Amino acid sequence: MRTKSFADMGCSIAGALEHVVDKWGVLILRDLGLGLSRFDEFQQSSGISPTTLTSRLRHLEEVGLIKREKYQEHPPRYRYIPTAKGWEFGVVLMALAQWGDRHDMSGLGAPPVAFFDRETGDEVSLEVISQETGKPVRNWRPGAGPGADQRSIDRLSVGEAQRQRNAGEGG
Amino acid sequence: MRTKSFADMGCSIAGALEHVVDKWGVLILRDLGLGLSRFDEFQQSSGISPTTLTSRLRHLEEVGLIKREKYQEHPPRYRYIPTAKGWEFGVVLMALAQWGDRHDMSGLGAPPVAFFDRETGDEVSLEVISQETGKPVRNWRPGAGPGADQRSIDRLSVGEAQRQRNAGEGG
Repeated sequence: MRTKSFADMGCSIAGALEHVVDKWGVLILRDLGLGLSRFDEFQQSSGISPTTLTSRLRHLEEVGLIKREKYQEHPPRYRYIPTAKGWEFGVVLMALAQWGDRHDMSGLGAPPVAFFDRETGDEVSLEVISQETGKPVRNWRPGAGPGADQRSIDRLSVGEAQRQRNAGEGG
Repeated sequence: MRTKSFADMGCSIAGALEHVVDKWGVLILRDLGLGLSRFDEFQQSSGISPTTLTSRLRHLEEVGLIKREKYQEHPPRYRYIPTAKGWEFGVVLMALAQWGDRHDMSGLGAPPVAFFDRETGDEVSLEVISQETGKPVRNWRPGAGPGADQRSIDRLSVGEAQRQRNAGEGG
């Protein structure tokens, strides 16, 4: 049951979370990113229940992250493929994997999955890059964007006041 | 109620999701990243219920993403600060915001929040970078990492077989 919609919070992060529904939605997108495409493949990969899987696949299709293709006529069988918008979620998956690996959240002691340039085979990673210089940036902060409404400005100003209190305390 | 633990799936992404619990956990980390630190600030920012907020703050503290500091003795009042591990989640938040903004998931028509180099003020963004050349890579794929166990290898090989079927169909 949905108790509160994250879609109308005026926040890109909340809106993105609403698109993927929950942790199961993220794992389905992970499996799609690995190349899995069939109902039973998703079930076997994550141990998701058929009811939850059906519901999440329907939602991901409704919000335009995946499309359903019939790959067999008799009996009808379907596979699921990410749309362009669904593929782009790969950056979020890579960010989760990179953060998880940094603290061994897989419990395996080393990254179970890595990411590679399809053309050269070089390993790739996510970096925060300056749009001016193209170079990595270590120390960055959020600030008002061009679409900032009152809610965003309020959040940012509460945060700014807090940072100034911390600085005043030498914290 | 938790039905299934994501922590022992042998997957960094599942482990990372388990750390943040759910969408509310992500919004609390978003607000911490913006500089919010007090119970009532989190409540006001996201509309989260006190019960859910208490439970998520406790969990985030248990898994080492935030620490609680007393900032007033009489009556005792606390604020919440991200640990180093909690701050590093910022890359996931930036990835969610960037994906959300690309498809206007905030509904505001333009990004409500942007990210800036603290030193130069230049706008920054997340990029997939080759570890060999330091240059952006457009076309990347997941593959086995140094910690890959049988589950990871199985998922990757199902995906690889699927990619070959697609290629065979010219798909």
